[in-house]
Amino acid sequence: MQISELGEFGLIEHLTKEIALKQPGSMKGVGDDAAVIAPDATKQMLVTTDMFMEGIHFDLVYTPLKHLGYKAVVATISDIYAMNGTPRQLMVNVALGRRIEVEHLEDLYAGIKLACEGYGVDLVGGDLSSSRTGMALSLTCVGDVEEGQCAMRSGAKDTDLICVSGNLGAAYMGLQLFEREKAIFESQQHGNSEAATPDFSGKEYLLERYLKPEARRDVLEALRKAGIQPTAMIDVSDGLASDMKHLCKQSGVGCRIYEERIPIDYQTATTAESFNMNLTTCALNGGDDYELLFTVPLTDHDKVSSLEDVRIIGHIARKELGEYLVGRDGQEFELKAQGWK
Amino acid sequence: MQISELGEFGLIEHLTKEIALKQPGSMKGVGDDAAVIAPDATKQMLVTTDMFMEGIHFDLVYTPLKHLGYKAVVATISDIYAMNGTPRQLMVNVALGRRIEVEHLEDLYAGIKLACEGYGVDLVGGDLSSSRTGMALSLTCVGDVEEGQCAMRSGAKDTDLICVSGNLGAAYMGLQLFEREKAIFESQQHGNSEAATPDFSGKEYLLERYLKPEARRDVLEALRKAGIQPTAMIDVSDGLASDMKHLCKQSGVGCRIYEERIPIDYQTATTAESFNMNLTTCALNGGDDYELLFTVPLTDHDKVSSLEDVRIIGHIARKELGEYLVGRDGQEFELKAQGWK
Repeated sequence: MQISELGEFGLIEHLTKEIALKQPGSMKGVGDDAAVIAPDATKQMLVTTDMFMEGIHFDLVYTPLKHLGYKAVVATISDIYAMNGTPRQLMVNVALGRRIEVEHLEDLYAGIKLACEGYGVDLVGGDLSSSRTGMALSLTCVGDVEEGQCAMRSGAKDTDLICVSGNLGAAYMGLQLFEREKAIFESQQHGNSEAATPDFSGKEYLLERYLKPEARRDVLEALRKAGIQPTAMIDVSDGLASDMKHLCKQSGVGCRIYEERIPIDYQTATTAESFNMNLTTCALNGGDDYELLFTVPLTDHDKVSSLEDVRIIGHIARKELGEYLVGRDGQEFELKAQGWK
Repeated sequence: MQISELGEFGLIEHLTKEIALKQPGSMKGVGDDAAVIAPDATKQMLVTTDMFMEGIHFDLVYTPLKHLGYKAVVATISDIYAMNGTPRQLMVNVALGRRIEVEHLEDLYAGIKLACEGYGVDLVGGDLSSSRTGMALSLTCVGDVEEGQCAMRSGAKDTDLICVSGNLGAAYMGLQLFEREKAIFESQQHGNSEAATPDFSGKEYLLERYLKPEARRDVLEALRKAGIQPTAMIDVSDGLASDMKHLCKQSGVGCRIYEERIPIDYQTATTAESFNMNLTTCALNGGDDYELLFTVPLTDHDKVSSLEDVRIIGHIARKELGEYLVGRDGQEFELKAQGWK
């Protein structure tokens, strides 16, 4: 169906008609100039916003729109979890490229709604507009956190332990697989008539990490249960090296990360090898992981060691000691953030 | 200066370093995963978000970046005023086209900061990213409103008076002037060597309405002073016809707008004539005015009549009576929203 048949507001209505508001704070959702939220006076509000541009943050050649919607929500609410908060309301703006039809938008919204339901977030607003070129998404999430429990990037102290959830570099290797298949597909379009079906068998975990990441709400719950309050926290969206450097900078500290402690999945390792890529570089600089990187006081060592799916990877140091990766042989390499794409 | 010399985070720091947070609720601004806001328990929070795409919402050929920044802020906070609220915090995401340099961003941020200062809004966050093509902006504004004073689109009742602030169609005529000069400029580029300087004399008001609109905070103050609580309100961003129809739809009512009551500036009228355009059509369908369109009970007639820069332009009717413009000769025309651009 052509979008012009429904018009902007008919289309928003069509896409959002079944949405029920479940958060007690959501007073007014889609359909007015602004969303109305009743604040919980015992808590602090958190607001975060993210933009996703076609050709920069996603490629529609290998990203189904439903996955794009899901991933955009996860990436956005992950910032609320990274403050040790709970996401409550979400707003989504979409600027549509020319070839987009109603069915495409239905797919995008199916992914958005699925993620909202899974994480208990209300979709309370958003606009549609046109784009002269590619698609652009902009998401805003409102959440809250108990006073005194907010985990900023700025609270890490010398000797704190550095921890990370899950494993790193998997989404990045998933992206490499998709990019390789895209290149093969495109070269076939230009001459070679024998069409090959991409073979991703055995790599499903990497593709899923790239296409359908999850935010680590479960890790926050485990931390609360264990009585651990992180001194500082950030989600790994740009890559471990870059995000660790943000945390150090905001906290005014240095760090040591131990290469052998960085958690890496088996599929990530074998795929990096097949691409002839340095595995540690992939784990340090691959983005889109949405794992939680956080610091805890040294006295929490035993508590944090007993947590499933959390690994201690290093420790905070005084600022003048700098930010370094300690290699398997004990050699130190300065942590460097990858250039901005 | 090339943006790559600073990098994303160096650039954000460079652009936001002088920003002081003035709102008591702004606990943590730029530099973390999310902004932290202490809510006022006696109020409801308002959140609105807007996207601005190059080639759709703005044209950099005739829109200086400082004006673009200013206008984007005004357009966004106008939605908070349209709820009868007060804007408090703002977040700005920018996706940069390829030719953008640091100085361009400084101009954009100069406009953003100027608007924030003028309206008392704190800039508390935002990202920079790349765009494969044109520039895209996404702004999010958080505000609040006293409980019971929120003016939704949905509160208009039969016999309520329909009022609008300022005058309509001026920004649209400003846009026409810019578009005409752009067309002349482009035709000169293709052959005609005689370069003409655009002559905008006598049209400054229209250009300013397009390039540097203001949000009508002053009208809300006047309403409060007069003891008037609007039953419904919306800001005129898409055009009077379209926004009136939204208000009617959300309120489940109809309306009558009197053509002769629609406020139009003298410059708008003469320019429409010179373009051979129907003046009422311009006033009904021209966007970007950011005037407030609101309804008040009939019993507020005398109070609202005495307000400066507010005009009663019609009245709400029962739903089955439809949405009509009453012409100068008494003939009725159905209100139609312009097609979606």
